[in-house]
Amino acid sequence: MRVRRLTVIGVGLIGGSLAKALRQAGAVGEVVGCGRGRPNLEKAVELGVIDRFTHAIGEAVAGADLIFLAVPLGAMRPAFEAMQGRLAADAVITDGGSAKASVVADCAAVFGGELPNFVPGHPIAGTEHSGVEAAFAELYHNRRVILTPGAGTDPQALARVRAVWQACGAEVIEMPVAHHDEVLAATSHLPHMLAFGLVDALARMKENDEIFRYAAGGFRDFTRIASSNPVMWRDICMANGPALSAMLTEFSNEMTELADTIRRADGDHLLEIFQRAKAARDRYVDGLLESNE
Amino acid sequence: MRVRRLTVIGVGLIGGSLAKALRQAGAVGEVVGCGRGRPNLEKAVELGVIDRFTHAIGEAVAGADLIFLAVPLGAMRPAFEAMQGRLAADAVITDGGSAKASVVADCAAVFGGELPNFVPGHPIAGTEHSGVEAAFAELYHNRRVILTPGAGTDPQALARVRAVWQACGAEVIEMPVAHHDEVLAATSHLPHMLAFGLVDALARMKENDEIFRYAAGGFRDFTRIASSNPVMWRDICMANGPALSAMLTEFSNEMTELADTIRRADGDHLLEIFQRAKAARDRYVDGLLESNE
Repeated sequence: MRVRRLTVIGVGLIGGSLAKALRQAGAVGEVVGCGRGRPNLEKAVELGVIDRFTHAIGEAVAGADLIFLAVPLGAMRPAFEAMQGRLAADAVITDGGSAKASVVADCAAVFGGELPNFVPGHPIAGTEHSGVEAAFAELYHNRRVILTPGAGTDPQALARVRAVWQACGAEVIEMPVAHHDEVLAATSHLPHMLAFGLVDALARMKENDEIFRYAAGGFRDFTRIASSNPVMWRDICMANGPALSAMLTEFSNEMTELADTIRRADGDHLLEIFQRAKAARDRYVDGLLESNE
Repeated sequence: MRVRRLTVIGVGLIGGSLAKALRQAGAVGEVVGCGRGRPNLEKAVELGVIDRFTHAIGEAVAGADLIFLAVPLGAMRPAFEAMQGRLAADAVITDGGSAKASVVADCAAVFGGELPNFVPGHPIAGTEHSGVEAAFAELYHNRRVILTPGAGTDPQALARVRAVWQACGAEVIEMPVAHHDEVLAATSHLPHMLAFGLVDALARMKENDEIFRYAAGGFRDFTRIASSNPVMWRDICMANGPALSAMLTEFSNEMTELADTIRRADGDHLLEIFQRAKAARDRYVDGLLESNE
């Protein structure tokens, strides 16, 4: 499965960690980095994450047998455009975008249909930190990576991407694009909206200094994801808009109902909700996530 | 400041940790536990958290010079009733309730007005675990404790309670009851509603097993507080209903607006919200909390 030349477009936490993991596994020859910011790319060379870099995507992909697109979702389409006519015949492309329908559509728009060597993917991993300095080889260890191949995806390209992620210690799962986008809207995109929204609401209150002063440890955990990259999250909202906005509206209605339940002082109903939630979290979340670490 | 006899009513995480901290500080003679569940109280004796126990509050408070009420908010009023006529002349009472107006009202209803030796309090500390086995002496170390004395609170009782918390390593702050309840609605009660609500919503989806399977680390942090004690949280909702339901309704409206912004694909507005939230969290939350640890 050895990769001769890996090109990472977007050398941050996600892209940098893939390069580091493949290097640690001895599964990659040369790593070429591509991005807009020179200081970050220089840092990546200094840290040994990449061997060399260029700001031009067309140049970066030439001669690569594996290309990893780890840019915000809004930058996917221009990246595909810049690759056109520069790809080696055996080049396999995959990505790390948190929504898949938009990336598949971007690729199809540029290449005039499904590109057999493109395998859409999403590693379910990350931290609230970004940039190449946050990258580490173990990020994908025991994490799940979802691949969403289409009917026209080349089976050999799919097998290759699967093997790459397995070499990083990840568990690889396949599902349809639309299902991925709904599941992620529920488990990742919606929680991020709530965390961003809560911190923003509190920051807009008068005396917000004092408000934050009395926030306890639970608040810090709850809002950690509000420290995530704003550009990335704007792009996720734009890319997964229909699934996410529908889920957010529904959740918002449920919270209005909960406010009514509190106003009516309906203790039995409140207890029922809280008990069901606690049982679900204790059973599923800890159980499933811990089995995963 | 040495406490001759401490009575802890409700020997769980909060009550047990106060007893442990005062013992570790060498600041307490005897500790009497009081509660309903015999196994938990026997465990508390076995762990050395309390010296002896009784299920009768009237008996438990007799001869105590410090009484700590660490029961769910719904159990405060019956506890005050059971104390009546059994308190020593020098007995000082304080509590650990997460909402203060309701406790102050419960006390006044039972004693026919403000009780000079009652100092309402709230340690801003906790974990998602409960029960005496979760208690530890360092829980209050470098944490804030808010006291909300009234006009009729005896200054000596206030000084005593302040000294007790300081002996546990806490920083003590005073504020009016209503202000406490608003600040806590924003920083603690509202986030708990969102976490309980989100986990409950996901648990009610079909294929919820699968949904939780793809939840990443951020989801686990975000929903940790949904593993908190359901009875305690029902009581907090009932006790701080007006402040909490108002805040929840407002937040719910903001999330409906956010859904519209996503639907309109207004990227500039989304970026503005996310950037403001990230800046606030990075600046206030980490800064303030870390200075606090």
